[in-house]
Amino acid sequence: MHVRVINPNTTRAMTDLVGRSARAVAGTTLPGVRVDAVQPTMGPASIESHYEEALAVPGVLEQVALGEAEGVDAYVLACFGDPGLDAARELARGPVLGLAEAAFHAAAMVGRRFTVVTTLARTVPRAHELLARYGMTGACVGVHACEVPVLALEDPASDALARVTAACVRAVAEDDADAVVLGCAGMAEFTGHIAAAVGVPVVDGVVAGTTFAASLLAIGARPAGHGEHAPPPPKAMAGLLAPFAIAPGTALPALARPRAAVVL
Amino acid sequence: MHVRVINPNTTRAMTDLVGRSARAVAGTTLPGVRVDAVQPTMGPASIESHYEEALAVPGVLEQVALGEAEGVDAYVLACFGDPGLDAARELARGPVLGLAEAAFHAAAMVGRRFTVVTTLARTVPRAHELLARYGMTGACVGVHACEVPVLALEDPASDALARVTAACVRAVAEDDADAVVLGCAGMAEFTGHIAAAVGVPVVDGVVAGTTFAASLLAIGARPAGHGEHAPPPPKAMAGLLAPFAIAPGTALPALARPRAAVVL
Amino acid sequence: MHVRVINPNTTRAMTDLVGRSARAVAGTTLPGVRVDAVQPTMGPASIESHYEEALAVPGVLEQVALGEAEGVDAYVLACFGDPGLDAARELARGPVLGLAEAAFHAAAMVGRRFTVVTTLARTVPRAHELLARYGMTGACVGVHACEVPVLALEDPASDALARVTAACVRAVAEDDADAVVLGCAGMAEFTGHIAAAVGVPVVDGVVAGTTFAASLLAIGARPAGHGEHAPPPPKAMAGLLAPFAIAPGTALPALARPRAAVVL
Amino acid sequence: MHVRVINPNTTRAMTDLVGRSARAVAGTTLPGVRVDAVQPTMGPASIESHYEEALAVPGVLEQVALGEAEGVDAYVLACFGDPGLDAARELARGPVLGLAEAAFHAAAMVGRRFTVVTTLARTVPRAHELLARYGMTGACVGVHACEVPVLALEDPASDALARVTAACVRAVAEDDADAVVLGCAGMAEFTGHIAAAVGVPVVDGVVAGTTFAASLLAIGARPAGHGEHAPPPPKAMAGLLAPFAIAPGTALPALARPRAAVVL
Amino acid sequence: MHVRVINPNTTRAMTDLVGRSARAVAGTTLPGVRVDAVQPTMGPASIESHYEEALAVPGVLEQVALGEAEGVDAYVLACFGDPGLDAARELARGPVLGLAEAAFHAAAMVGRRFTVVTTLARTVPRAHELLARYGMTGACVGVHACEVPVLALEDPASDALARVTAACVRAVAEDDADAVVLGCAGMAEFTGHIAAAVGVPVVDGVVAGTTFAASLLAIGARPAGHGEHAPPPPKAMAGLLAPFAIAPGTALPALARPRAAVVL
Amino acid sequence: MHVRVINPNTTRAMTDLVGRSARAVAGTTLPGVRVDAVQPTMGPASIESHYEEALAVPGVLEQVALGEAEGVDAYVLACFGDPGLDAARELARGPVLGLAEAAFHAAAMVGRRFTVVTTLARTVPRAHELLARYGMTGACVGVHACEVPVLALEDPASDALARVTAACVRAVAEDDADAVVLGCAGMAEFTGHIAAAVGVPVVDGVVAGTTFAASLLAIGARPAGHGEHAPPPPKAMAGLLAPFAIAPGTALPALARPRAAVVL
Repeated sequence: MHVRVINPNTTRAMTDLVGRSARAVAGTTLPGVRVDAVQPTMGPASIESHYEEALAVPGVLEQVALGEAEGVDAYVLACFGDPGLDAARELARGPVLGLAEAAFHAAAMVGRRFTVVTTLARTVPRAHELLARYGMTGACVGVHACEVPVLALEDPASDALARVTAACVRAVAEDDADAVVLGCAGMAEFTGHIAAAVGVPVVDGVVAGTTFAASLLAIGARPAGHGEHAPPPPKAMAGLLAPFAIAPGTALPALARPRAAVVL
Repeated sequence: MHVRVINPNTTRAMTDLVGRSARAVAGTTLPGVRVDAVQPTMGPASIESHYEEALAVPGVLEQVALGEAEGVDAYVLACFGDPGLDAARELARGPVLGLAEAAFHAAAMVGRRFTVVTTLARTVPRAHELLARYGMTGACVGVHACEVPVLALEDPASDALARVTAACVRAVAEDDADAVVLGCAGMAEFTGHIAAAVGVPVVDGVVAGTTFAASLLAIGARPAGHGEHAPPPPKAMAGLLAPFAIAPGTALPALARPRAAVVL
Repeated sequence: MHVRVINPNTTRAMTDLVGRSARAVAGTTLPGVRVDAVQPTMGPASIESHYEEALAVPGVLEQVALGEAEGVDAYVLACFGDPGLDAARELARGPVLGLAEAAFHAAAMVGRRFTVVTTLARTVPRAHELLARYGMTGACVGVHACEVPVLALEDPASDALARVTAACVRAVAEDDADAVVLGCAGMAEFTGHIAAAVGVPVVDGVVAGTTFAASLLAIGARPAGHGEHAPPPPKAMAGLLAPFAIAPGTALPALARPRAAVVL
Repeated sequence: MHVRVINPNTTRAMTDLVGRSARAVAGTTLPGVRVDAVQPTMGPASIESHYEEALAVPGVLEQVALGEAEGVDAYVLACFGDPGLDAARELARGPVLGLAEAAFHAAAMVGRRFTVVTTLARTVPRAHELLARYGMTGACVGVHACEVPVLALEDPASDALARVTAACVRAVAEDDADAVVLGCAGMAEFTGHIAAAVGVPVVDGVVAGTTFAASLLAIGARPAGHGEHAPPPPKAMAGLLAPFAIAPGTALPALARPRAAVVL
Repeated sequence: MHVRVINPNTTRAMTDLVGRSARAVAGTTLPGVRVDAVQPTMGPASIESHYEEALAVPGVLEQVALGEAEGVDAYVLACFGDPGLDAARELARGPVLGLAEAAFHAAAMVGRRFTVVTTLARTVPRAHELLARYGMTGACVGVHACEVPVLALEDPASDALARVTAACVRAVAEDDADAVVLGCAGMAEFTGHIAAAVGVPVVDGVVAGTTFAASLLAIGARPAGHGEHAPPPPKAMAGLLAPFAIAPGTALPALARPRAAVVL
Repeated sequence: MHVRVINPNTTRAMTDLVGRSARAVAGTTLPGVRVDAVQPTMGPASIESHYEEALAVPGVLEQVALGEAEGVDAYVLACFGDPGLDAARELARGPVLGLAEAAFHAAAMVGRRFTVVTTLARTVPRAHELLARYGMTGACVGVHACEVPVLALEDPASDALARVTAACVRAVAEDDADAVVLGCAGMAEFTGHIAAAVGVPVVDGVVAGTTFAASLLAIGARPAGHGEHAPPPPKAMAGLLAPFAIAPGTALPALARPRAAVVL
């Protein structure tokens, strides 16, 4: 089995980070699963607004198309806005999981009430929208911003770890929560440190998504490929996005053929 | 006041159609409002899947950016999936309305129960997702597909009008509905014909969006420009999407500067 | 087109106020729309309890009946409890909008989260009931009372403007709201002052209702006149309310015939 | 204890009917409770539309005011639209129960899924609105109209009993329901006949309301008289409704003083 | 009519307490109703965790089986977690009411907003689960723990009354509630004292359940005995629980035959 | 890691079945995880009513207590009613997953709309209750009974496979579902056969629960052991259930000490 984590932004350090986390969890418990991480060739350096999330989607689709050409079995989209999830499901034959989706499901399975700590306040409404989509509005007792920008999370010189940890401690206390969901893929390596501080399970979607993708493959739960998530029909694409056109008789866009995925 | 309708796909005939509809409603009742219609320079010929909707979003953002550079006051996104709505709101200083959003609000104001007739069955779940987002799950008593492809709606040789009308008649009878919402911008010129057949109000989002956009401007309800929909922060964009980068100290992406919008 | 604003209470100063607001918004943007304001010949001087709201309804119905006899095209009920809305829809051939209904829809179209500032605390539960009816429970992030009585709003010697403004500033800050809805028709002329203070759009239902009523007429969305809102059947009325009886073969109550509406 | 059933319409036969039902249930099980039934001096002969329901409210309030002057302890409003319930609660010192309210609560306590059989189809949306208000949307698995007019229910020459029974049998079968709620006070004496036919409990709100009103008195659950349902403030009432004015220093409208309630 | 209150725990003082409360309310208003109270022969001394609630259920079922053998007409389960309610409904021919169920319905009939004061914080999520089951999530504006253990409620030397009262006063003030629900059967005799302190109705489920059980019997609302709550099928039971086996051709478990209920 | 599947009923053939399924999925993908299956020493032979589900709970708790004494890391409760889930979570230090819980989460991750096929119609309301608890009401588009008794599922001479398969085919077609959830642990070995017939993913909770339990262990998401699911307090247990008493100073009931779990 081959599970690929797609970092939807174009910052190499974050791709490396999510790859390390995903490989670590797979290495100890899923020895038969190959796990790698990639990033798009196009799009924003980080995702902190709807505009950036929207412009991350073509790159996510590019990477899914390349993965399909290569035979990848399942994908995790490592951004908490779950950008392009439904479109990716149309391209992929196997499971595709969003970071928020996986983290919410994991948190809901360990306790009745979870809280979320995300980056900037402007992303909070999107988190609520995703909670509603996944049926988790009742299970989530709070969404809190720590106001640490995404790229500061990767900067060892920043005080990001301290600030995210403090926000988690506050969130658990205020919300009387049974678990904390980390609201950004960039927090993946903070999990252990925060768990020690808060005393309740801390859920990072990168590892949750990786193990759940492997679980879905293990139980044979591959999407059906028809209905809402059937392959997109052949269609012309104008201008800049012409490489995404799907020619009649082909299952994938033109861009999936010549190039190979950049596996980090 | 200048209200611009953006056709998110790249088919000129549909841009012409939504422009005619929007200008017609404005001409009779909003003489002081300038209304025009544009289409992106990039993206899919029509939108019938999540993949296509996702790839329509960059073009929508391109057109909003160009509109802002030109001084447009408000926008209507003329595709029933409301592609890129939140991202567009970050770029625009004035109101941005989605087609489904406007149609749902209009239908909810004329009766307690509305039904929706859309194009392909695979788009039905997206309609339900938008109903939930706008609080309209309780007001909507049915979503029905007529299985007419989007571009057939514009083909006078097709039987699209007859099939959409028949689907609307069935939907109103089955659902005991007080109004019908047309689930595709391409049905905009069918309104009168269908209304005569069903005997209840028929709501097209192109004209609803145009009049509501003018209404919001008239009552001074321009978004605040902070919080969730504050302007996106400056950010590098890699590869194909580099023209969407927003340089520090600028409010709009680079692509908004040299080019002018294509007003049809 | 003729849009009539009905002030459900019997205080002339408030009828004048809502008439001025409605005509102002129509004058600048809807030159073809005739807008006037009326008040009932019966009922409470102001509406601050369920008892008063209930007793305002006969007067609202009287005015709709008179309006129908006169050929009015659409109505706005200028009280935040939307008194008699469903009954009025049975009498009227055209759209009837409630103040809360129009304001909620407008606020929902300019941002994801709106807050409401109303008059007395005892009216807060009714506001929540209306939010639920219109599907806006999720969009509304707070309902706040400023404890200013309705008639004090019209008293220039009172400190009403200062107190309502202060309540709006607090509400926006506490709720992190994208818009404020004014919860009483008597606040209609405070809009500009409050908007300057809060920095987010301030929505008054009088002007929202007036422009939306004109919008619904413009797009042909007249209610169907059957189903839930079909004309009421002929029926005897006893005692004091005998003038509201609808005789067989007539569409309107007896009181609609001899008298003319009092247009202010 | 004195529980009064108010028939909100002005048809004496229906007042007699609900009085018989209420006294019958009280006679066998609540020997210490005095039960009577009254009707307003004003308003519609029957209630089958929003217009008629709205115009029944002043008469309901008249009767509550008279009952308060007389020392009545609790009220049941014997119309399935629960007309004027909140306003009545402001006037009364003791419990006031709506017919639908009482029936829904009773049905919810005997099984998980109940179905409703009402009179005309046009009243179905109001039933759904009341279900939502009382939190019963999930417990109710169907609302069905039998298209028997209200006054035909009291006409022994009509086929009303057969048609209502048939509708109940169909509703239970289609909805796999654990109980049936009768959606009109006029069906009160059909209960036994229908119960024999359907094989599940049949809930009539007149008797449910009467026993629950006595229960609330027995456990001391009298409303608090402040907050939302505090007594209405003194207020002038114009024109036809002047008798409903509440003078400063008085707790009840003028009409409550000279006249006595018509106890049938 | 014979209504039996089952105390699900095995502490005699609490059985005595709920029996006194239930008999008191019946004595004054339901002279024809026989009311008694029993407790299981097995299970926990008090119920403050899911573990204890789960282990109280066999004893509840034992007592219902014994009551059925004896001809009891209706039951009230006097623990706020409503332990074994659905299973008890399968065994009983008459109504079975849970303590929380009865209290929530009563509170919802006296005002729009009620608050709950329960014992330990760890029981709060179960209260929310029951609120959701009964459709009362919207009516309940708060659930508060007073951190008084169940058995301290019965200890006259404890400060339980003072602490529960203080928690109720705080809850009403913070939540602007119209009523308080007492979240433990052990608080039944505190009702009058607390009501005097809070100024709003205080609802104890023991008396609410007793009067509602009598009400359901009075109106003939006995469950249907089919569908979800049909009698359990004959089935072998292994080991410790063998006395609960239901032999083919019998309606009740073996344990219901030889022994008599312990009526206190 | 040691994951234990607890069959809540006392039928050895079903314990063997769920053990085979769980070990099969673990064997291929989770080589480091030890998986076994046990059954209680007490309780019903199968679970098809609330009564039986209630009486299965003590046996589930017995097995969790024994598992804890033995050092088991996580549990799956292999009955679709998730009997005793919250109580089990209080006893266990690691994750405990219900069958319905795991299956619903898995199905929700492979598509937007799943349908459920369960055994007897009388269990359908419990399935809806669990869907609500886990936030899956919106994701589930149907719950269907095939009316095959639980123990017939294990009887190779029965037509159970054919009937369950036919019910699944009908459910997918009627509900336009993206996945099917099997509503009984006894259907675990039907998965492959049904998947071939329906053409969409078929989710069995035994394997979903096993892989998710391993996933939660892998990502360190062990419950916190405080709040709602803290260990139950020491408490006396009367009569038949005395072995479940927890003595002061001990973390587990007495029955966990002398005996060993029966691992099949």
